[in-house]
Amino acid sequence: MHGTDPQAHGLPGFVGGTLDRVDHIRSNPALHAQAFASPNARLLVLEGLEPVTDDHGLALVPLAADARIEQHVLLGVDLQDRPIFAHLVETLEQGPNATPRSRGLADLVSASDVALYGTARSLVHWHARHRFCSVCGAPTHAHKAGWARRCESCASEHFPRVDPVSIMLAEHQGRVLLGRQHSWPPGRYSALAGFIEPGETVEEAVARELKEEAGISVHSVRYVMSQPWPFPSSLMIACIAQCDDPALTLDETEIEHAFWCDADGVAAALAGDPDAPFLAPPRMAVAWHLLDHWLRGAVAPSDARA
Amino acid sequence: MHGTDPQAHGLPGFVGGTLDRVDHIRSNPALHAQAFASPNARLLVLEGLEPVTDDHGLALVPLAADARIEQHVLLGVDLQDRPIFAHLVETLEQGPNATPRSRGLADLVSASDVALYGTARSLVHWHARHRFCSVCGAPTHAHKAGWARRCESCASEHFPRVDPVSIMLAEHQGRVLLGRQHSWPPGRYSALAGFIEPGETVEEAVARELKEEAGISVHSVRYVMSQPWPFPSSLMIACIAQCDDPALTLDETEIEHAFWCDADGVAAALAGDPDAPFLAPPRMAVAWHLLDHWLRGAVAPSDARA
Ligand SMILES: [Zn+2]
Ligand SMILES: [Zn+2]
Repeated sequence: MHGTDPQAHGLPGFVGGTLDRVDHIRSNPALHAQAFASPNARLLVLEGLEPVTDDHGLALVPLAADARIEQHVLLGVDLQDRPIFAHLVETLEQGPNATPRSRGLADLVSASDVALYGTARSLVHWHARHRFCSVCGAPTHAHKAGWARRCESCASEHFPRVDPVSIMLAEHQGRVLLGRQHSWPPGRYSALAGFIEPGETVEEAVARELKEEAGISVHSVRYVMSQPWPFPSSLMIACIAQCDDPALTLDETEIEHAFWCDADGVAAALAGDPDAPFLAPPRMAVAWHLLDHWLRGAVAPSDARA
Repeated sequence: MHGTDPQAHGLPGFVGGTLDRVDHIRSNPALHAQAFASPNARLLVLEGLEPVTDDHGLALVPLAADARIEQHVLLGVDLQDRPIFAHLVETLEQGPNATPRSRGLADLVSASDVALYGTARSLVHWHARHRFCSVCGAPTHAHKAGWARRCESCASEHFPRVDPVSIMLAEHQGRVLLGRQHSWPPGRYSALAGFIEPGETVEEAVARELKEEAGISVHSVRYVMSQPWPFPSSLMIACIAQCDDPALTLDETEIEHAFWCDADGVAAALAGDPDAPFLAPPRMAVAWHLLDHWLRGAVAPSDARA
């Protein structure tokens, strides 16, 4: 698998959005109202937080005649010059996790539609969870076309959260560390991951997570790629780090099991081979692409024998 | 300046913390209480959000006899096995921006002390701005040794924010794009930057910011380094991107002026040369190190002439 196009296996899910985010419209109430009133304007249909598709991709319908601008977020303007809105809800019927319908979306619609859905999902979730001011407790209302909320009581502005997460492979002598959480499907293993905390670099967070969860020390952390993950609003930052001593001490509250896997094992898992040593993460997850990236950089034993 | 050690110019400010963040203590009330009661426990002294130093570095004092555990965050355990706490405040006397005292800290104390201060500042600021539940408006209280807040009314847990920011140099034919904001000191120029939004990769955010603020299109975005920036709680993600068409269209509400600067100009500015074409950002900022990184990779005209 050496030397292939880095994009040969496509993008992780939610990457590759093509909407113009029209910052100049968001902060200009007249332009915002004009976009909302435009005959081109479309509502991205959601059922709760779930995606809805039709023959063309994500379901997009004209705004209802009685639609109210303050109950919508302007996601952006699409390649057909249509302002795309999502409807804000006050209550959430589901938790932050990915569902089968949201996970399967990449098989049904284009990468840019998956990215559009991810953006909408994160924003609708954030609004529903931020109806009150964290500074003073008073109600807040959507502001800047839905890219902020404002508290009239204390004049605070609040902005959508993006939670950076480090997700990483530790590498030791041609093998990478894979782990599984207790709740995962049988056989599933993936890269370890955790939220980056205040006061840390990406690289420091990678080292801390591997120490906490697997008991290993790493160095030479290298950034590989990033991905927005809208459950509810993470920014996955994927890295590879070098480990000199592979002895594991697992945090068993977080990690059920972990092992060092060689390139043949990773290649078999990514190919969906039923005899692979583990069940790979879904291709929508950045972990799949991180493993693929590592594999294409690694000297696979099967190549070395060829 | 070619081929020097990547660390030759030190680390950006707030990088290089040495505290053990002791995740296993945070979530265990008995261990947390034991750390708070330990004769080794120390309070990191702050004046509001400002750092306080003594002859040894950051001022650290024993906890007061009447100190209450729920009014403190456990920052971690230091290399001398001392649990380090910061006191939570209910009101902030200052805004989120860096002050002369916080900016000058790197000249007074070690890199790890600067990082400790940054972590404390972000957390104390976050607690003061999150005394109420954004879901239901009820009061919240510190939880998990200060690494969360909990609402008893609706059972929501809230976690400290980390806001990822992309900060970037666009490169065109051996020059990089520098800009200045209206409020900056005379002559100061730096890399452009902006918050990463829900639904974006790091690379997509870099391209969007450069399009919005400077009107240029870029490709081949490359990650360079990251830095926590505690004003109030950003994660700076520094990148270099390639630009094929250098014609600028500035967003004049954000950017007062911008220009393409060659390697000689950047080298003179980083060296503090009074004849440099611009005043460099402070060495504490990741922008200084991003320029330095670029310079050491760039073929400087003065080298080419040698
Ligand atoms: Zn308020
Ligand atoms: Zn609540």
